[in-house]
Amino acid sequence: MEHGLHGGDIYGSEIIHDFSVNVNPLGLPEGVGQALRESVGGWWRYPDPQCRGLVRKLAAYHHVAQERLVCGNGAADLLYRFAQMRKPRQALTPVPTFSEYERAVRAAGGETRYYGLREGQGYRLDVDRLIGSLEGAEVLFLCNPNNPTGLALPKGQVEKLAKACGQKGVFLVLDECFCDFLQDPEEFSFLGNIGKYPGVMVLRAFTKTYAMAGLRLGYAVCGDPGLAQRLQQAGQPWSVSLPAQEAGVAALDEKGYLARTRELVERERGRLGEGLKRLGFKVFPSQVNFLLFQDNKGAYGDLWARCREGKILIRDCCNFPGLGPPGRATGHKAGEGGPWKASGYYRICVRKEEENQYLLRWLAQL
Amino acid sequence: MEHGLHGGDIYGSEIIHDFSVNVNPLGLPEGVGQALRESVGGWWRYPDPQCRGLVRKLAAYHHVAQERLVCGNGAADLLYRFAQMRKPRQALTPVPTFSEYERAVRAAGGETRYYGLREGQGYRLDVDRLIGSLEGAEVLFLCNPNNPTGLALPKGQVEKLAKACGQKGVFLVLDECFCDFLQDPEEFSFLGNIGKYPGVMVLRAFTKTYAMAGLRLGYAVCGDPGLAQRLQQAGQPWSVSLPAQEAGVAALDEKGYLARTRELVERERGRLGEGLKRLGFKVFPSQVNFLLFQDNKGAYGDLWARCREGKILIRDCCNFPGLGPPGRATGHKAGEGGPWKASGYYRICVRKEEENQYLLRWLAQL
Repeated sequence: MEHGLHGGDIYGSEIIHDFSVNVNPLGLPEGVGQALRESVGGWWRYPDPQCRGLVRKLAAYHHVAQERLVCGNGAADLLYRFAQMRKPRQALTPVPTFSEYERAVRAAGGETRYYGLREGQGYRLDVDRLIGSLEGAEVLFLCNPNNPTGLALPKGQVEKLAKACGQKGVFLVLDECFCDFLQDPEEFSFLGNIGKYPGVMVLRAFTKTYAMAGLRLGYAVCGDPGLAQRLQQAGQPWSVSLPAQEAGVAALDEKGYLARTRELVERERGRLGEGLKRLGFKVFPSQVNFLLFQDNKGAYGDLWARCREGKILIRDCCNFPGLGPPGRATGHKAGEGGPWKASGYYRICVRKEEENQYLLRWLAQL
Repeated sequence: MEHGLHGGDIYGSEIIHDFSVNVNPLGLPEGVGQALRESVGGWWRYPDPQCRGLVRKLAAYHHVAQERLVCGNGAADLLYRFAQMRKPRQALTPVPTFSEYERAVRAAGGETRYYGLREGQGYRLDVDRLIGSLEGAEVLFLCNPNNPTGLALPKGQVEKLAKACGQKGVFLVLDECFCDFLQDPEEFSFLGNIGKYPGVMVLRAFTKTYAMAGLRLGYAVCGDPGLAQRLQQAGQPWSVSLPAQEAGVAALDEKGYLARTRELVERERGRLGEGLKRLGFKVFPSQVNFLLFQDNKGAYGDLWARCREGKILIRDCCNFPGLGPPGRATGHKAGEGGPWKASGYYRICVRKEEENQYLLRWLAQL
């Protein structure tokens, strides 16, 4: 097992407490589990290539037209299909951020230019400065809320950015996979504006929101319905499995799950943050279900390896490009082969109270 | 609903007896269903991107090295990944055959040339004649046993073809997704030779063999281990869901399921074939779990539509290019938009005795 793997890669190791993967700490909703157990017998059938039942429900849920929607084998599937179809020669992405944007663009033969967020500003995005950097880019990938920082850009700011992108011919991909963990998602999501922006695509996932990473289910909402149709036809017909489609339909019927999620995340993120600060770490502000922190005094050594001794997995952010102060940023190209050195930056997700307390106690005795 | 859809697309219609989809008539093995029901609670985790547990079992099962194996979200996923990576300008495929080879090549910007199998020879493949047609092709896609004819090429003949492909620099993709339905798969599968042919890739699927089309699970066995690695890295990391990986592992533990399958398929295919002949259809010889037949006297009109009146779905082969006598072949480009006219050629899968008898009775009263 190596530093800098994607979160949740616990295979081939002995991990009991997985803080590396940003999924809902409440776990798969009980109603979804029940629906799945009852439908196993029907999984000999091919899935509906167009996911019609799920698309209908999603359209009603988000108040968007069905034609704008396309489902995928996780949001990552749609990201790769988009890159293969669009083949941007140059993409732009603020960093630090999720590395799969760059990998998808590279797989389609393109290059990614980094726009460095500033540590001194807590990695907060300055939209005007970003707009000044658009020149030459064909696609801008923006993770909102951002991974690994957990900061979200309000929708008014996103709209300003979308307008500038439209004027400059830059396609905007908004990854809103963590949006449902915000206390007030409506203030940040761009879905309400999507109809006015043919040059914008919003990515969403059940993966994180409903803790179904193993089932693989994401979707895109496209400003241009033609793009949704082309994405649908860009790959194999049966990319979204039957269990994924059925789980998605059942998840949208859940009552109270998201409210309980937000309450738990808010309370426990606060406690985790406070605990980490007391232990001497620098904790960056987050609005969602994970926290970026730094061993800025270098007191803990290779914290990732030391956590593994306790069968705890945290995300070592050593291969997030652009993390760290200018001149000392990690500077790796995303997806570049390791091994990497410990960076001193780590990301943990918020889990249930008991597990979070276990992590803090374990760190305290180091 | 339209003529010429892929088999199994029963969504948005009222189909009770689905003869359009070539999956195992025994349905999902009971042990697999049980394993899935028990593991639902763990599906909040990300799947292992490398499918290590499944790959280990597959390697032992087929006596091939683990490095040659790569799993996908159905065999179709690997087909599209291969096409995107290899980007053949010209592919060659004997027709009639499965249409996704051509669609995958076209999605990657290439063209497919058809090599017409001859109706007069029951669409049997003449390897020497095919070898004479290789010039100009970069990739040859061969479905063995072939869909929709159900005919298989013995492995000695496949080896002759693989050698000729190697000499002429043509990469050979062997789709063996229906191999397990043959009475003696060992006489036809190329897996035992794969180590000697770096220019060959064999595709296999759990989809059909274990009736898990809804779960999406296929794999490739590559003569060149480097190709397996590149295919693994060509798309998103998490393309194979956890349910699919777990179902695959459980399926390989099944005892007697494949023997029962072969016995049922052999007996029922014989009965179905005899019944169709008695009703005046021309029935093409098949070695697997589906049958191609023709209303060659034009006595039944639009059989597909008339079957639907009885909530029975059969596969209208109107959009299989190369089906029919020269000059009257259907001639559609695969994946071309419909609507198509009824072609007089149909494919049905073998189901359990009771359903097969129901179909024959229903056809008899037309």
